[in-house]
Amino acid sequence: MTADAPITNVGADDRLDGPFEPNVFARDCGSRAAFEAITGRWTSLVLIALVEGPHRFGELRRRVDGVSEKMLSQSLHALEREGLLTRTDHGTLPPRVDYALTPLGVEVAGRLRALADVLQDTVPLFEAARAEYDGQ
Amino acid sequence: MTADAPITNVGADDRLDGPFEPNVFARDCGSRAAFEAITGRWTSLVLIALVEGPHRFGELRRRVDGVSEKMLSQSLHALEREGLLTRTDHGTLPPRVDYALTPLGVEVAGRLRALADVLQDTVPLFEAARAEYDGQ
Repeated sequence: MTADAPITNVGADDRLDGPFEPNVFARDCGSRAAFEAITGRWTSLVLIALVEGPHRFGELRRRVDGVSEKMLSQSLHALEREGLLTRTDHGTLPPRVDYALTPLGVEVAGRLRALADVLQDTVPLFEAARAEYDGQ
Repeated sequence: MTADAPITNVGADDRLDGPFEPNVFARDCGSRAAFEAITGRWTSLVLIALVEGPHRFGELRRRVDGVSEKMLSQSLHALEREGLLTRTDHGTLPPRVDYALTPLGVEVAGRLRALADVLQDTVPLFEAARAEYDGQ
């Protein structure tokens, strides 16, 4: 995109007169598309699972509690499209396919793992907040 | 939850014989509920917007490009329920209501901001990955 290209569909605060700056708030920005793909309900947990190392499909299915075969398959395709994971078919019988993070995937998934760590460390705070809100 | 409480609905890898450990992968864990609330399509962007300071409803509506009034309202309620933001009605006419992060919200939103920074800094990598995937 050149400095003169029109920027459409961005919030009033994000209209720029100068060169395009990536902005996760702007609907048409590539970073927003990546953000939405990464923070999806299942994609986010799949990324965190892969921080621990490459996984096979069935291993991911067991690790990410509640994911269906269809949703896991869709999530893996979406993450491969974003360049965050690779799919390696070892060409063996029975088939063996491994999913592993790319270097970009490692960086992104590490940020999600850090977020999950905060949440795991503060479960009682969330439970207290929910009880208070629901009791109002 | 006591050490003897049964843990149900967790993935095979997450069944524990010992005391309950918070685990974002486990369907019934309070950290998983928080993770899903926080990584929602609009809640995540609202949290990042509030890193910059308190906002009024209309300000958030403009900042988070594409959010409808209804979805923003639902997102704000969900985040208030998780204890991540406070709603302050100044009791003035015309009404003025501010939304601001709690200390827990600051910590969580900071992790999301860090994730968004990675994505904004690597937009060309995502665009190249998508073009390659779609061209296969």
